[in-house]
Amino acid sequence: AETGVTVSGYGRFGLEYLEGRAEETQIASRLRFNIDGKTETDSGVTFGGRLRLQSTDGGAASTNAALFYASYEGFRVEVGNVNTAFDSAGLIYNSEMGFQDSSYGDPQGAFFAYNSTGAVAPGAGIFASYSMGDFTGRISYVNPDQMTGASTDAEVGVSFDYASGPFAVSLAAYQDGAGVAGNDGFFLGAAYTINDAATVGLNYMDEDAAGGRVVTLYGNYTMGATTLRAYVADLDVAGADTAYGLGADYDLGGARLSGSVQQGYAGQTYADVGVRFDF
Amino acid sequence: AETGVTVSGYGRFGLEYLEGRAEETQIASRLRFNIDGKTETDSGVTFGGRLRLQSTDGGAASTNAALFYASYEGFRVEVGNVNTAFDSAGLIYNSEMGFQDSSYGDPQGAFFAYNSTGAVAPGAGIFASYSMGDFTGRISYVNPDQMTGASTDAEVGVSFDYASGPFAVSLAAYQDGAGVAGNDGFFLGAAYTINDAATVGLNYMDEDAAGGRVVTLYGNYTMGATTLRAYVADLDVAGADTAYGLGADYDLGGARLSGSVQQGYAGQTYADVGVRFDF
Amino acid sequence: AETGVTVSGYGRFGLEYLEGRAEETQIASRLRFNIDGKTETDSGVTFGGRLRLQSTDGGAASTNAALFYASYEGFRVEVGNVNTAFDSAGLIYNSEMGFQDSSYGDPQGAFFAYNSTGAVAPGAGIFASYSMGDFTGRISYVNPDQMTGASTDAEVGVSFDYASGPFAVSLAAYQDGAGVAGNDGFFLGAAYTINDAATVGLNYMDEDAAGGRVVTLYGNYTMGATTLRAYVADLDVAGADTAYGLGADYDLGGARLSGSVQQGYAGQTYADVGVRFDF
Repeated sequence: AETGVTVSGYGRFGLEYLEGRAEETQIASRLRFNIDGKTETDSGVTFGGRLRLQSTDGGAASTNAALFYASYEGFRVEVGNVNTAFDSAGLIYNSEMGFQDSSYGDPQGAFFAYNSTGAVAPGAGIFASYSMGDFTGRISYVNPDQMTGASTDAEVGVSFDYASGPFAVSLAAYQDGAGVAGNDGFFLGAAYTINDAATVGLNYMDEDAAGGRVVTLYGNYTMGATTLRAYVADLDVAGADTAYGLGADYDLGGARLSGSVQQGYAGQTYADVGVRFDF
Repeated sequence: AETGVTVSGYGRFGLEYLEGRAEETQIASRLRFNIDGKTETDSGVTFGGRLRLQSTDGGAASTNAALFYASYEGFRVEVGNVNTAFDSAGLIYNSEMGFQDSSYGDPQGAFFAYNSTGAVAPGAGIFASYSMGDFTGRISYVNPDQMTGASTDAEVGVSFDYASGPFAVSLAAYQDGAGVAGNDGFFLGAAYTINDAATVGLNYMDEDAAGGRVVTLYGNYTMGATTLRAYVADLDVAGADTAYGLGADYDLGGARLSGSVQQGYAGQTYADVGVRFDF
Repeated sequence: AETGVTVSGYGRFGLEYLEGRAEETQIASRLRFNIDGKTETDSGVTFGGRLRLQSTDGGAASTNAALFYASYEGFRVEVGNVNTAFDSAGLIYNSEMGFQDSSYGDPQGAFFAYNSTGAVAPGAGIFASYSMGDFTGRISYVNPDQMTGASTDAEVGVSFDYASGPFAVSLAAYQDGAGVAGNDGFFLGAAYTINDAATVGLNYMDEDAAGGRVVTLYGNYTMGATTLRAYVADLDVAGADTAYGLGADYDLGGARLSGSVQQGYAGQTYADVGVRFDF
């Protein structure tokens, strides 16, 4: 029976450029500590809880609401400030790059996720996942108004990941995303690992709050300590530019130096370069 | 000389029912981390301090005010956000049950205690305790207005615990509880451990702010991994119903599944069932 | 490669007397936890970040903004809520005494320093230091308005420490201190260690925001577990009294009992006595 508290997290800092804002080039930073307490019972079930302390861009560190979980072998249930099925889908954020791990090819809709800062609706969320071999399935339910009995709708989400040799697929959906009635979303992603060095993938997202479906094609290529990253993303909205990004990571052996240049759907240029280290 | 920082705490989550509120059944949860720093001097005196991070029912985790202490063998002195003698009395909360450890048979008055969230009056409290064998004595003094020199009264409290074989007794009192002049309270508790499995106890409380004295009779009975709990509490106020509770704990070996059904002095029904794990 | 999170800090509590305030004698306390996460890369460069939790005088513990650093052998670079060159100068706070480590002989001007509580200007600061043998040099740059492009000036600071046998010298300066145009400061300090027991030092500070230059003469003398401390400080402002202080530390072997009696430039008496322990 393993019992105790562990603290882990990451730090990142560097320069961020965003075309058109008052100060286009800024120092950007984040320091995150996850504080985890857990108890493993004699029967092998682990009960745990997590809080996060996080400081972003010079702000005083914030706290967040607790996530609780029970896990047993491949099965895990969460209560409180839960992860959600859609946000946890494999492949869905795989086009991200730069020291801040961002991409215009990410989902553009509105849905609940684990909340890094501040309160959540009290006890609102429940999440369950099950992994067996190369398969993982997830389901989540987040009710934003448990205490009040108000009329907001609960978000329900599901996701499935499967891998077989070089192929990986991920499927996810949510209903009444972010507690808004009729705000549904769907995701289908596939990735193919060409060889030790190269991966390509295609993500398809159809979300009501995004204004149109997004298709993102991405690829990574590793040469020694360097990984090159690229993506092209199309948002099916009149007047939207094609978004794309080019990035590179340099592995420092425990940390990485990462940079990217990206263009968004409004044609704006974003670029970042900095360091990310995990502990 | 032992020096360092340790983090401990507990998590609990489950369902709570309270008759008559807007949403009668709610998910209830708490995650608590105690952060303790201490230094043991060459002479054997330990100096330490404690802060608490706590998230309840989906709220962003709060911090609290520091508790400082010096301890040497059975002697301990606290300064700051101190424990108080009355709140620390043995047996006083022994009728509690359920995963949230609650009981209508608890003290119903108003007195200071260690503050889990937020600030305290600056440097207001002093607490001392001494344990020798089966005896523990405590005294506390909390001045809510040190900084302002205002007219609020200081709370003074004392308590004594003693055990001899199967018998345990506890005695406690406070004067000007919670800084309110003339708000006094008294507690007398006794418990008898019948055998390895069964304990019964009687608590008597007379507190000015409670409206009348409370008498609580309680008992526990353990069969294997299961502990059954029961209490009956009488509040000597016109129109008050008899309060009672029935509860059960199931020991998961490092965690427990606990539930209770209780009725309060206003006849309201309360019930809870959930998990509590310590780390 | 060393990776992980460590928590360290200190606690202190005791009595503080300040002539003329509403409640002249108060209990004063502080509990500080530094939470450090770091990763050492294969090449020997260490990346790290720090947050602080701190409760002072009964206040709920505050968080602060993150400090990030990269270090390699004697070289260190900081970003974010940085230390500053002036505030880090050796000898500059050497006349401090008492359990709260205070002195009227400290700098009296206005300049940036590492911020223990609350936010800082986003990404505003950069600090670099280099140590080789007995020499340390530092430079810092703090821009209070990175995000807004407002007209506040950036503070630039430098400092140098050097030691040779019993002699130590320190030199520091800042320009546009605390972001105020034309608010400059200069510091020159020298100390001489007479023998194992005794040290004397002289600090000279000329700061625009102080109203006049400060000269502080101080000395320490250690006999067994006891260290006696004294200083005399002169502020070159019309009507300012000579400030002085007498203090003593008693080493408890891992903690210290410290007290001081001091007189400020306005003739006010300050005294403190209490315990300080590090962990």
